[in-house]
Amino acid sequence: MDVRTILVEPKSEENIGAVARVLKNFGFSELYLFPSQTIGKKARSVASHAEDVLSACTIVNSIEEAIANSALVVGTTSKPGISIRKHLRMPFFTPRELKEKVQGKQGILSLLFGREDTGLLNEELRLCDIIVHIPTSPDYPVMNLSHAVAVVLYELSDVQVAYGGQPLACVEDKERLFAHVRTFLDEIGYREHKKEKTMLMLRRILGRAELTARELQTLRGILRKAEWKIGKV
Amino acid sequence: MDVRTILVEPKSEENIGAVARVLKNFGFSELYLFPSQTIGKKARSVASHAEDVLSACTIVNSIEEAIANSALVVGTTSKPGISIRKHLRMPFFTPRELKEKVQGKQGILSLLFGREDTGLLNEELRLCDIIVHIPTSPDYPVMNLSHAVAVVLYELSDVQVAYGGQPLACVEDKERLFAHVRTFLDEIGYREHKKEKTMLMLRRILGRAELTARELQTLRGILRKAEWKIGKV
Repeated sequence: MDVRTILVEPKSEENIGAVARVLKNFGFSELYLFPSQTIGKKARSVASHAEDVLSACTIVNSIEEAIANSALVVGTTSKPGISIRKHLRMPFFTPRELKEKVQGKQGILSLLFGREDTGLLNEELRLCDIIVHIPTSPDYPVMNLSHAVAVVLYELSDVQVAYGGQPLACVEDKERLFAHVRTFLDEIGYREHKKEKTMLMLRRILGRAELTARELQTLRGILRKAEWKIGKV
Repeated sequence: MDVRTILVEPKSEENIGAVARVLKNFGFSELYLFPSQTIGKKARSVASHAEDVLSACTIVNSIEEAIANSALVVGTTSKPGISIRKHLRMPFFTPRELKEKVQGKQGILSLLFGREDTGLLNEELRLCDIIVHIPTSPDYPVMNLSHAVAVVLYELSDVQVAYGGQPLACVEDKERLFAHVRTFLDEIGYREHKKEKTMLMLRRILGRAELTARELQTLRGILRKAEWKIGKV
């Protein structure tokens, strides 16, 4: 979905700048502000390299104008409902549940974030289709505005990590490595009665490490080098 | 695991305060600072109700001291590796993958966050067992320090949402509701040839909404009230 971040009467200019930066960090750009805010030097300084997002933000004069054309209006709150008899803040979703709910859907997803001190008013929450609450400690549930935006946009972001998924070593290569290790244990005169237990331990350690194909080849290189040194190759 | 958040040479006092707040928001308290920092009014003001976390923070004189007794040392970076031939920043994990990796484990998990401008130095990353990178846009991958902490601690937090899990309506109650709706359609003289299609539509709509038991009873109350009004009960 196309995510529109709407700040309702933010009091701190720094927060507006910080939110612009968060949007750009997670690949979003649509920022709405209600009501008219003076965006000054402070906001631009905190926005840093996201000044373009800040400059392009839309100033609206009402919540209705902010959520126009939305397919889904999401209200955020640090005070979720506690009674199932009241519907205003209940049932609520965590940011992750929201992500799962909207995955694969199309249209504008409007995210409403309220004032730093009082959040969204009840009449504003009434306009929302869904309520989202970030799971926070009861000792201090109120997050800084821009941090709350960061957590929700982190969940909704579709940014793909370019090089994160390393090709893991395949089972055949791993078996070749273990066979190599077993030979090596023999070559260094490792005690026979300890061998199976040690092999299993190595299998568990390397299993947990989720070896990449490349790392596996490097390990085999070490073994070959060691074998060469002890005159076995 | 017990999470220790370590800030390495943070330049901005506001960031230190903001990080203290984030820790308390997500139910953490162990904050380490390296090297000695003056924590002044600005930091305390931004920490807000997390001044206790700030006051209790540990000042260390070296990274080694900061990570002492850790079971797992995690280095964060906005510049993940791009070559599988280099091991310093590769392979790396997303915060979610880190969460999955450490779930159910015990010991101290040390999270290292670097300087606002240059991050962690290569020699600091060398001390880390695991590298974590928050998936961000290539247009602007560098997050504000406290926002990066917020995202990682959001993932690692074990805070349970107290009232999030509403008991959903059971299948039997749902079937009773649909039977009730079907009767109601008959009672209001709904066109016979449209009935099945409409029933299916309602089933789909209410299915997607994941009705709670209470909401279902309220819907049946509405139907009963309407039936009473049209003289059918």
